[in-house]
Amino acid sequence: MRSAPLGFFDSGVGGLTVVRAAQELLPHEDIVYLGDTARVPYGSKSPETIRQFATEDVQWLLAQGVKAIVIACNTATAHALPHLRETFRVPIIGVIESGVEATLADKDTERVGIIATRGTIRSHAYQHALALKRTGLIIHEQAAPLLVPLVEENWLDHPATLAVLHTYLDPMVEKGIDALLLACTHYPLLIPTLRGILPSDIRLIDSATTCAEHLKSELTRLDLLHPPEQGGQLQIHLTDLSEQFETLAKRFLARSPGKIRRASL
Amino acid sequence: MRSAPLGFFDSGVGGLTVVRAAQELLPHEDIVYLGDTARVPYGSKSPETIRQFATEDVQWLLAQGVKAIVIACNTATAHALPHLRETFRVPIIGVIESGVEATLADKDTERVGIIATRGTIRSHAYQHALALKRTGLIIHEQAAPLLVPLVEENWLDHPATLAVLHTYLDPMVEKGIDALLLACTHYPLLIPTLRGILPSDIRLIDSATTCAEHLKSELTRLDLLHPPEQGGQLQIHLTDLSEQFETLAKRFLARSPGKIRRASL
Repeated sequence: MRSAPLGFFDSGVGGLTVVRAAQELLPHEDIVYLGDTARVPYGSKSPETIRQFATEDVQWLLAQGVKAIVIACNTATAHALPHLRETFRVPIIGVIESGVEATLADKDTERVGIIATRGTIRSHAYQHALALKRTGLIIHEQAAPLLVPLVEENWLDHPATLAVLHTYLDPMVEKGIDALLLACTHYPLLIPTLRGILPSDIRLIDSATTCAEHLKSELTRLDLLHPPEQGGQLQIHLTDLSEQFETLAKRFLARSPGKIRRASL
Repeated sequence: MRSAPLGFFDSGVGGLTVVRAAQELLPHEDIVYLGDTARVPYGSKSPETIRQFATEDVQWLLAQGVKAIVIACNTATAHALPHLRETFRVPIIGVIESGVEATLADKDTERVGIIATRGTIRSHAYQHALALKRTGLIIHEQAAPLLVPLVEENWLDHPATLAVLHTYLDPMVEKGIDALLLACTHYPLLIPTLRGILPSDIRLIDSATTCAEHLKSELTRLDLLHPPEQGGQLQIHLTDLSEQFETLAKRFLARSPGKIRRASL
């Protein structure tokens, strides 16, 4: 069982930022990644539709014999994680719990900003999880639906991106925040731009990195770590193939994604 | 047969700009609109996937007993119209032919700019159709993938939108164009902004309006016009329902969309 691959899924290729972080921490794990690019994005769709799509994603990964599943997508975690855990027996790890823990790791953090897709913000999943763990937090949420398209265009420091970021972030910076939670797996690519426009004392919490750390501790706890020899293979399957998705996959993974296969759900 | 409804489909709700234009010209036609919001957008996906989705959309509309079908989506017209016409017997009208005819209606037009989704631009369907009808045209194509998200946010004259439009359009304006073809059903909402930033001698051709005019002439030619009494009902069906899609539907239609139903393909 320990030698079985991990299954990751996302609405598209953004979740490869989580894969990249996981591979750095867990170089011996084999990973099967499913990106539902035929139906991307999930972030603008209804909770019912997101749950249905996520259920199909998990069924496909289980058919590949995975030992555990990572939901490498904030929107799917927000709307589908409880449902998936009720439906399937395999360990399922989302991106929210770990992001919340990393945010609260600093005990002086009192004011938290969250940016995410509209779907994630509407779920209030982060707000809820944060409030359960620490009372008295002040939380500012902002749906940021234009950031995914801008990141996918690679316009990371284009004047349009700066104008969009100022519109989303200036109000919460004026109110005052200690930490900003980047609650979408596309956003790590914006970190250099964000560092340039935000006051330097605001901590940035990146849900890709924190999820990979959580995954490592969960695999350790469940005694599911891959033996420290061989392994380390990555297989990417997408429900729609296009040149654009291949280009994006390379950028999110920060290296060649190898041969990408088409999956039929 | 003349009293049967017209079927319109689009990847989402953008095609309602075509419905709006059609209702002005053809107030007695009943319309069944299908928006595939569960899988929106089509513009970034592969030709094979777009053809599969469009085929399923037409099958669903045929089951509603429509007398003719309008593909209220440039990307689906570009990639699926020939395949759909081979597969189905019902009259099928796309948005490209009429846009091309309207562009060439001015005999002095020599230099044409086209903006559209990445999928439409990659198909070269407009470029091909224009070149077939007039030799010696100079055509500048520009994929404009960020315009749909900006229009959906209603950021029609936001600084970010102006920065995006300048990036897309300044190079073709510098080279010189007589007409700009707005080859996506979302773009009519940007016309006031475009008028403000483009030289006044550039004609804007809007594929929603031109498609409605073409529809009227085709229904007349095929003797399929609705009798001039009653009629005029619009039924909107979406494959995913959300508050956001209802808000967008109202904006694209420029009035209340009535009760929106959920369709399962």
